[in-house]
Amino acid sequence: MVNKIERPLDVLNVSKGKEVLVQLKAGKQFVGTLLAFDIHINVVLDNAKEIENGEQSKSYGLTFLRGDTIVFISPSAAASN
Amino acid sequence: MVNKIERPLDVLNVSKGKEVLVQLKAGKQFVGTLLAFDIHINVVLDNAKEIENGEQSKSYGLTFLRGDTIVFISPSAAASN
Amino acid sequence: MVNKIERPLDVLNVSKGKEVLVQLKAGKQFVGTLLAFDIHINVVLDNAKEIENGEQSKSYGLTFLRGDTIVFISPSAAASN
Amino acid sequence: MVNKIERPLDVLNVSKGKEVLVQLKAGKQFVGTLLAFDIHINVVLDNAKEIENGEQSKSYGLTFLRGDTIVFISPSAAASN
Amino acid sequence: MVNKIERPLDVLNVSKGKEVLVQLKAGKQFVGTLLAFDIHINVVLDNAKEIENGEQSKSYGLTFLRGDTIVFISPSAAASN
Amino acid sequence: MVNKIERPLDVLNVSKGKEVLVQLKAGKQFVGTLLAFDIHINVVLDNAKEIENGEQSKSYGLTFLRGDTIVFISPSAAASN
Amino acid sequence: MVNKIERPLDVLNVSKGKEVLVQLKAGKQFVGTLLAFDIHINVVLDNAKEIENGEQSKSYGLTFLRGDTIVFISPSAAASN
Repeated sequence: MVNKIERPLDVLNVSKGKEVLVQLKAGKQFVGTLLAFDIHINVVLDNAKEIENGEQSKSYGLTFLRGDTIVFISPSAAASN
Repeated sequence: MVNKIERPLDVLNVSKGKEVLVQLKAGKQFVGTLLAFDIHINVVLDNAKEIENGEQSKSYGLTFLRGDTIVFISPSAAASN
Repeated sequence: MVNKIERPLDVLNVSKGKEVLVQLKAGKQFVGTLLAFDIHINVVLDNAKEIENGEQSKSYGLTFLRGDTIVFISPSAAASN
Repeated sequence: MVNKIERPLDVLNVSKGKEVLVQLKAGKQFVGTLLAFDIHINVVLDNAKEIENGEQSKSYGLTFLRGDTIVFISPSAAASN
Repeated sequence: MVNKIERPLDVLNVSKGKEVLVQLKAGKQFVGTLLAFDIHINVVLDNAKEIENGEQSKSYGLTFLRGDTIVFISPSAAASN
Repeated sequence: MVNKIERPLDVLNVSKGKEVLVQLKAGKQFVGTLLAFDIHINVVLDNAKEIENGEQSKSYGLTFLRGDTIVFISPSAAASN
Repeated sequence: MVNKIERPLDVLNVSKGKEVLVQLKAGKQFVGTLLAFDIHINVVLDNAKEIENGEQSKSYGLTFLRGDTIVFISPSAAASN
């Protein structure tokens, strides 16, 4: 996966249809299947679940996350949740 | 619904006329019927109700929400409120 | 009123000359008659009054509110104040 | 004054040469004579005075205020200070 | 000085080479000789001194101040420090 | 390395494929191999690890970091972690 | 040095290759040799050292600092550290 990544958004592109972990500025974390993203890093997750203290606390299903609230997105980290 | 989503704003488009949950940066949550949105993620809800501790606390009716105060929008989560 | 709303700013347009409730990021709320707005959501209220704990605390008369300090604007909610 | 206001900046235009009250994000308030403004809502006040707890606490004279620190500007409210 | 001011930046222009007081968002105040400014309100002060509780606490000499950290700039107020 | 640096992004360019330390605004630090960056300073790290109190606390693997959450990036500092 | 400064960035230009003090919004200060800067005030320092309570606390070596986290940059102040 790593050798396909020349620009930052390539990570999001190769993660489409896969589980990702999204860290928000307010401290919340979400895991869910990455369906779509744009250059503002607005993202859409399916089966989005909020993570608190390492455990899934709430299910939001299909969710639009506004890009400017996102700190990082990790496809690998989601696999271990 | 999921297979129509290629870009993030598609989620908002397929949610028009349906109930959505909107999480604001200041911690407040709103539920209401999504009437309109734009590329800044400014949204208009009809029958907007504020949610506190999982319960509806205030009714605002027709409400314009400024995009830069929004963290996420979930059409699915509103169904369970 | 709702069936005229195709874009978010349409809510502000149909609310011109009517009372609106404006929620600011710093926690303050204003009610007043909406005289004007622009695409930055800068708004002008006439007979602007600050609301604290559900009661009108201060009168500001004609007031210009800078758009980036606004969380939401509700024409319906103002009617009940 | 109100019937000349079609766009938000019209309020600032009709207030040139008059006393205005300026609320800043950090909580401070200024009163002073509005000399100039631009589309960023940068403003210049003459005889600017800081208001604390409803009383004038410091005099700053001619002062440039950066637009992105401003919450609201009220020509009417200044008259009652 | 006041009758030369038609646009906000005119205040900075007529203050070049003179002492100004600069209030920063983080609460700090600087006084110094205004050498240069641009449309972002980035400014350069010579002999910049930090003010704490009305007294000069530190000397920074020639200093570049980033515009988005500035609340207000007053040429008059500096004269009284 | 230093004599190749004429513009700020040159530091990121010469650090591609090397370990870097990334300081986030929220206080967190990451170390990882820099794979990609863009003009917004969005960066991609491989083998990203969070640092707390000087020790590696969590592994995130391949991670996209949004540029506007970044304070500084140091290729040298990572070497000593 | 002062008479070469017509625009704010001129201060950074005449400081290339010299020690500068950089104040960050989060309260941290860095000193280091200024290698490069751009119009966003992104800067690169060599031999960057963090300053806490007037003493050098950590060495970061070559470091990229994102412009929007910077409050001020002083070439003179660095000389006295």
